[in-house]
Amino acid sequence: MSSHPFDQALKLQALAPDRYAGRTSEAYWNMVGPFGGCTAATVLAAILQHPDRLGAPLSVTVNFAAALAQGPFEVQLHAARTNRSTQHWTAAIVQNDAQGQPQVVTTATAVTAARRETWSLSDQPMPHVPPPAEMPAMRYEKAMAWLDHYELRPVSGMIPQTWDGSQRDDSVTRLWMRDVPPRPLDYCSLLALSDIFYPRVWLKRATRVPAGTVSITTYFHAGDQELRETGSGYLLGQARGQEFRNGFFDQSAQLWNEAGTLLCTSHQIVYFKE
Amino acid sequence: MSSHPFDQALKLQALAPDRYAGRTSEAYWNMVGPFGGCTAATVLAAILQHPDRLGAPLSVTVNFAAALAQGPFEVQLHAARTNRSTQHWTAAIVQNDAQGQPQVVTTATAVTAARRETWSLSDQPMPHVPPPAEMPAMRYEKAMAWLDHYELRPVSGMIPQTWDGSQRDDSVTRLWMRDVPPRPLDYCSLLALSDIFYPRVWLKRATRVPAGTVSITTYFHAGDQELRETGSGYLLGQARGQEFRNGFFDQSAQLWNEAGTLLCTSHQIVYFKE
Repeated sequence: MSSHPFDQALKLQALAPDRYAGRTSEAYWNMVGPFGGCTAATVLAAILQHPDRLGAPLSVTVNFAAALAQGPFEVQLHAARTNRSTQHWTAAIVQNDAQGQPQVVTTATAVTAARRETWSLSDQPMPHVPPPAEMPAMRYEKAMAWLDHYELRPVSGMIPQTWDGSQRDDSVTRLWMRDVPPRPLDYCSLLALSDIFYPRVWLKRATRVPAGTVSITTYFHAGDQELRETGSGYLLGQARGQEFRNGFFDQSAQLWNEAGTLLCTSHQIVYFKE
Repeated sequence: MSSHPFDQALKLQALAPDRYAGRTSEAYWNMVGPFGGCTAATVLAAILQHPDRLGAPLSVTVNFAAALAQGPFEVQLHAARTNRSTQHWTAAIVQNDAQGQPQVVTTATAVTAARRETWSLSDQPMPHVPPPAEMPAMRYEKAMAWLDHYELRPVSGMIPQTWDGSQRDDSVTRLWMRDVPPRPLDYCSLLALSDIFYPRVWLKRATRVPAGTVSITTYFHAGDQELRETGSGYLLGQARGQEFRNGFFDQSAQLWNEAGTLLCTSHQIVYFKE
């Protein structure tokens, strides 16, 4: 097992083929729980370890029902249906509450697939942006722990420098990103990176309101070959919101590698407080 | 109970608070199973009937693990977590196979939420297109049954008239749509409509290959008020693909009402055959 903090965070102990014990990571701690991308990656890590797993991740949906508390948890899995080339998973993260009662904190579904080479084409070319070396990395003071484990080089749509409530025309952020320390990309780290964007409502309103992802869905376009070609290079991420309404907004994101290959597309619905 | 075919298709009998018996509808039959939007709506209909349900739909993810066969099925639900203003659901559609063994054909998760009025803003204005009355409705000959129950008025990106394999620059379709006969919009019919677009790969390649949705996620921006304001009017739907790779492509869609209110955004990953 690698000593990379991301691998440490995703370390699971098989209790049974359908049950995996884990523990929250200090390294990826956010404000009131782990970084959601790390939680999603933990569910996927369990699926990838399952002895019956067929193929590679195609689609993962993770619903954040409650914040994980610091400490142990269990990932429970079920291969609900296995077809010839696709497999449908249901999953949950369960954690004991203060009374020692198991509570569902995360629900999830996933599809894995044995993919074959076919006609392929992108309809979402990578935007023309300066290379990562030309964009300074963000520096934080007293930031949340998980931000120490990502190198983020914003290209546009940075976190507002002044919280003056000014409304912005668009809600687009573009940034280069990679793990700290650099780590060869795999399905789990790609899934985590797809959740890296700060809340679109902060950008749109220049107002820092409480906000948190309720549900994220990531579609994997990358297979093993694209992951290998990406290695530990930077990814360009782009995120935008479409609708901000009555306590929730959506976000759609794309992540390309430096060569311009679209590795995944990702969508989420996010709670925000007035 | 309304006699509208959509209401008939979604008719469920409560066997227990967490179990609902249904039957596939001839009216919404597709090629090898029901129209996927109708199947997704059936899962949501069960959730909305559950006596413990909190609030309105915020997010629904439905994974199509296998085609439903004609006949009876059961929707199984579980309120995995109920918070103060959100509720997390897991669901499955189960159907007996030829040997009488229950098999999971659909898995799903959903979040319902009691929403409050907050600061709201759209970042995805409706495209400027001619009104529905100016666009002729599509006519079909010997089409699949479910198409008889939707009025579709394409604006751009129609199904190719000739399957000549010519590659198209974009994969965008815009069309006006509503139920046949007209029916006041509700959450279930909105969810079904979010799955109405024909496969993007047909448009992109002008080649009619087998294709089917594997997983769909729809985010509801509309609440009761926006549904009421929409009534039985037309919706403008827009869909595009981002990446077509090794047997799967993704699709992102937006549905606005005639007044230009974004009612939902929807995403799916779709299987296609070379």
